[in-house]
Amino acid sequence: MRKSSLLKRSISEFCVDGILITDIANVRYLSGFTGSSGFLIITKNRPIFVTDFRYQEQAKKEVKSFKIIIQNVELTECIKKLASKYRIQKLGFEAHSISYQTYKKLLRDNIKLRALFDTVEALRLIKSREELSCIKTAIRRAENAFKKLRRFIKVGVTEHELAIKLEGLLREEGCKNVPFGVIVAAGLRSALPHAQPTNKALKRGDFVLFDWGGECDGYYSDMTRTVAIKGRYLQKHKELYSIVLNAQERALKAAQPGTKAALIDAAARDFIAAQGYKKHFGHGTGHGIGLAVHERPVISWQSKDTAEEGMVFTIEPGIYVPGFGGVRIEDVVHIKKNGLAVLTTLPRNLKVL
Amino acid sequence: MRKSSLLKRSISEFCVDGILITDIANVRYLSGFTGSSGFLIITKNRPIFVTDFRYQEQAKKEVKSFKIIIQNVELTECIKKLASKYRIQKLGFEAHSISYQTYKKLLRDNIKLRALFDTVEALRLIKSREELSCIKTAIRRAENAFKKLRRFIKVGVTEHELAIKLEGLLREEGCKNVPFGVIVAAGLRSALPHAQPTNKALKRGDFVLFDWGGECDGYYSDMTRTVAIKGRYLQKHKELYSIVLNAQERALKAAQPGTKAALIDAAARDFIAAQGYKKHFGHGTGHGIGLAVHERPVISWQSKDTAEEGMVFTIEPGIYVPGFGGVRIEDVVHIKKNGLAVLTTLPRNLKVL
Repeated sequence: MRKSSLLKRSISEFCVDGILITDIANVRYLSGFTGSSGFLIITKNRPIFVTDFRYQEQAKKEVKSFKIIIQNVELTECIKKLASKYRIQKLGFEAHSISYQTYKKLLRDNIKLRALFDTVEALRLIKSREELSCIKTAIRRAENAFKKLRRFIKVGVTEHELAIKLEGLLREEGCKNVPFGVIVAAGLRSALPHAQPTNKALKRGDFVLFDWGGECDGYYSDMTRTVAIKGRYLQKHKELYSIVLNAQERALKAAQPGTKAALIDAAARDFIAAQGYKKHFGHGTGHGIGLAVHERPVISWQSKDTAEEGMVFTIEPGIYVPGFGGVRIEDVVHIKKNGLAVLTTLPRNLKVL
Repeated sequence: MRKSSLLKRSISEFCVDGILITDIANVRYLSGFTGSSGFLIITKNRPIFVTDFRYQEQAKKEVKSFKIIIQNVELTECIKKLASKYRIQKLGFEAHSISYQTYKKLLRDNIKLRALFDTVEALRLIKSREELSCIKTAIRRAENAFKKLRRFIKVGVTEHELAIKLEGLLREEGCKNVPFGVIVAAGLRSALPHAQPTNKALKRGDFVLFDWGGECDGYYSDMTRTVAIKGRYLQKHKELYSIVLNAQERALKAAQPGTKAALIDAAARDFIAAQGYKKHFGHGTGHGIGLAVHERPVISWQSKDTAEEGMVFTIEPGIYVPGFGGVRIEDVVHIKKNGLAVLTTLPRNLKVL
């Protein structure tokens, strides 16, 4: 298997006897375990999966080609025992996933440690055909749920009711969970990029921002649409929409294999700035998506990533004017050998409901 | 305010110039911020709340008595700037919440660091009247949702359908989110303590385990009921039920102010062991609950906690027999000055539906 052979190379490269994997998305990626508590120790000869009593039966079904150990002591004590049993003198660990507290406890147990950065993340950055297929299904589920939601989007219904309804529809489409609480933000509230749905009812002429995602076999999707409720709305809102749409198209055009992520971000950002809304677009243009809803590549002005064949990420510029309202449009894209495929299929033009 | 004055005492006690709070539940506890990204720096004279552009408007509404700073750089860079601006030479940080990676970056920026353990957690351990009231509402919402679910629990309906329905009902009761994916496990699958709902349909005579929780203003509840579907069921399943019920009652009786958590655990565990099911009860007897669904006190054989007035935790013994099935009964309790109040009100006896 590609994944484990690459990790074994890391074992030699980093001069360790084993690698501890505690990031639960990485645990799932490498072992197939879908539960919420477990870790891996990968040595040259033997990959070990450790969980507790609660996941005993599930682990037997899901985790193939790993030795399964059920423990009833806490992480550090368990690692100490395993290190002694399997003669692990120097253990690599995921620096982003082990807390300073756990690190100190492991040191106290006389285990030699080596911090690893981006080991599994670098593998997850490039999606396999199977992973891409899961993400596509997660997108399809999210889109189908939203299509079914449309007839409920009307004057008088609250943000909260729409959010509950959409979450129910996502579950009905087969999503085992949702990547994040659905965002529904109407009128002035659309100026809050991460608004929690409230009991505010939709009014004629409101712009309503929906941000939601689907799931399939642990892989997520993420998308945003801003729709308008029939009625009289301000010319400015339509202008914002067309600026954001234009900005998104520029970023989509920029997202080619070999392009620096910071340049993809700039394609959207510079256009929005040129229209006079620089300070109203404060978040990054996108983020990788897969087993986590936010993962590498980072598509922002600070990013050091470069778009490569096999990457999957969002493109989601927005403009948010406090006291007025906002617009965001978000799609998921896949970088192919010779260009880009937009995986989201729902139309991007302004929909009036 | 009690919370911040206790933290200021910590600043003197630990000889630091400021305390960095990054655990998002602790951020909410201290500042009132309900978003998912933000941190605090508390100095002797000035409490600072930091978040990014997405939460700008929300922070203004929610975070009172903190100076609000909107940043567009990553955590460590931002801390470096603030440390220089507010002359923080030595910064206390939450050892469980800062990753080794972040710790190393901060060190590189020449900030002197001091690891703090259990600083805010020790405050959260004892619930105020307001917090208790939120937890009670979260329990009430969870109970009402389950009462409404009952008429859907019948032969032919799937675990997954029931889970979706219950989540929808929880949201309708007013829960802004759910603390964890609802567990519905029927028949043999009730032997999996943390089962994910499947497309398995309920059969006559099945025992079905439900584990779910409600929410109110960020505070959670958690409860489990195992019900029987009309039909012929094995005597052994009824026996398991009565053993678990008896074990739970013993733990409830043991949970008095001043009792060691390990003894509360033993009250349930020893009884289950005496009935011959020692190896079939592998998890702890309970856990604290509040802004996190699992927090201190830990009610297990390894715990060093002691029950004290103001604590709120679950009591949830279970027996899980692989290839047969399982039973768990879970309530939330509140330790009062002179004894214990069981906050969950749904009857605990075996319900046949």
